[in-house]
Amino acid sequence: MKLASFHYDGADRIGVLKNHDELALIDSAGDMTDLIGLGRYGDEHINHALENGDVINCGDVRWHPPVRRPGKICGVAMNNSASNERKISAPDHPAFFLKPSSSLVGHNEPVKIRTYYGSVHPEPELAVVIGRTARDVDATDAMAHVFGYSIFNDITGNGMRAEDMFHYWALYADEKNPDELQRREQHLSYAARYKGTDTFACMGPFITTADEISNPDALDVSCKVGDETIAEDSTRYYNYKVAELISFISQFQTLESGDIVSCGTAFKPSKDRKSIHHANFQRVAGPVEITISGLGTLSNPVQIEDKAMGQWRLS
Amino acid sequence: MKLASFHYDGADRIGVLKNHDELALIDSAGDMTDLIGLGRYGDEHINHALENGDVINCGDVRWHPPVRRPGKICGVAMNNSASNERKISAPDHPAFFLKPSSSLVGHNEPVKIRTYYGSVHPEPELAVVIGRTARDVDATDAMAHVFGYSIFNDITGNGMRAEDMFHYWALYADEKNPDELQRREQHLSYAARYKGTDTFACMGPFITTADEISNPDALDVSCKVGDETIAEDSTRYYNYKVAELISFISQFQTLESGDIVSCGTAFKPSKDRKSIHHANFQRVAGPVEITISGLGTLSNPVQIEDKAMGQWRLS
Repeated sequence: MKLASFHYDGADRIGVLKNHDELALIDSAGDMTDLIGLGRYGDEHINHALENGDVINCGDVRWHPPVRRPGKICGVAMNNSASNERKISAPDHPAFFLKPSSSLVGHNEPVKIRTYYGSVHPEPELAVVIGRTARDVDATDAMAHVFGYSIFNDITGNGMRAEDMFHYWALYADEKNPDELQRREQHLSYAARYKGTDTFACMGPFITTADEISNPDALDVSCKVGDETIAEDSTRYYNYKVAELISFISQFQTLESGDIVSCGTAFKPSKDRKSIHHANFQRVAGPVEITISGLGTLSNPVQIEDKAMGQWRLS
Repeated sequence: MKLASFHYDGADRIGVLKNHDELALIDSAGDMTDLIGLGRYGDEHINHALENGDVINCGDVRWHPPVRRPGKICGVAMNNSASNERKISAPDHPAFFLKPSSSLVGHNEPVKIRTYYGSVHPEPELAVVIGRTARDVDATDAMAHVFGYSIFNDITGNGMRAEDMFHYWALYADEKNPDELQRREQHLSYAARYKGTDTFACMGPFITTADEISNPDALDVSCKVGDETIAEDSTRYYNYKVAELISFISQFQTLESGDIVSCGTAFKPSKDRKSIHHANFQRVAGPVEITISGLGTLSNPVQIEDKAMGQWRLS
């Protein structure tokens, strides 16, 4: 089933896709986070809507991100095997960053870019929506914690990324003599700005429930910007599979119902060698459109906002 | 006024401190996020509680983080001027990372450490709680968006920090010839694991409302672990002031009611030269206790959890 959150007729609603271009309204289960929290009992509400719910046209809604305020959005870094040859050194486990719920926008809502953001590009990704709470889950059990899947555009300000880097001497307690400190040269970078700026997380249109996707590790992913295809890839080229990502994260952080894990960028260049790195929104017009097999198409226009940086220093 | 969230007599409640060790229950305003959202109308509910609310003893509650599920927690990186001499290169603006709401624990709740986390240390910080939504706010207007202040322990796994670093060739569109790509050597690191693991964000006991803190940029901060003082510092040594941080972040991300901005670590070593970097919880017992002038004391025991890393690879 394909579930959605949207604004319709003056109210925020949820619904289930019916007949390709119609939505049956789900009125009895609260918002999407509530519905996900119901687990398999949510099916009753969905089936009731399909049988008896009011039916509206998809063209008449304003799309929200399917989960409007997830507790967290974990984005997995450098998970595409196509990036492996560019790694000089890297961890031998998944690494991830967080995006805030305030950065989310739904299908058809604009991505808003300001000049002072610098270079910004799209990253087409498979997103997992967590169902049942996951803490200390082995990979073999992880899929039982998946509610469904969605399309995620992990928009990235690689201009800001290059600015938010520190090269410095970190302090650590000396291993042999823990009362003494030693300096270690480290490079750190901070992702909140380049990954978490408003509208840098497009998601939707739907959550496709897990029962419809027999193998999330073999889904075709493509991305278009304007008329050009800039990625033709598949989730089969992820270094770490969906189950491995959920298991790994859950051994550090509790994954809660409604949390999102976006599995990493499907960025293989298209046949004509265009790639996501060419699609700097400062120069290239949208819309940006991501299609994943079985999940549909997420499309977002790109707007350049005429807004200068304000005075953030006191003096 | 000092506001708190807690569990009492079988229910989750909020209250306001009365007579040093008593809390008056606020029953009419929902949870803390709802109360903050009421803005100045919240004062009626607080005053009503102080005059007519049931009064309970602070010793009888289990403390929650004052805001239980903030939309986001922004942590400011390397904001203490004492760290400046260790910077080889660094941005000339604030940099920040995100911590998830799932990492929060309240006053007196345990910080839970596992062997496989590696070295973990405390970071004593001033936290700002956002009141009115802030987007594109100049520094001179920023303080009007502050609801109050709290004590924040930005627990950091510097062992995991050293593991989640990438040295790699990033791709950028060539500036002169944007259809061609160029490689740039970059060092990136990802903070979600080392900053966002469960119990790595202690906060409380209270939110002290902004009217009680005339100058948040001159508050004494100290931190003890067990019997040893490991930091004696002041927010006056932050590179960027509270107003500057709010203004800067707001030009990228909308700061929403209830969001947290933790302003950076007050980590100057104590007089006997002990510092936060000596306080590796794998070796040093708690409790960890942070005191900030005007805000109170946040104390948390430290527990070592006997839990091995599970099987996160499928094969």
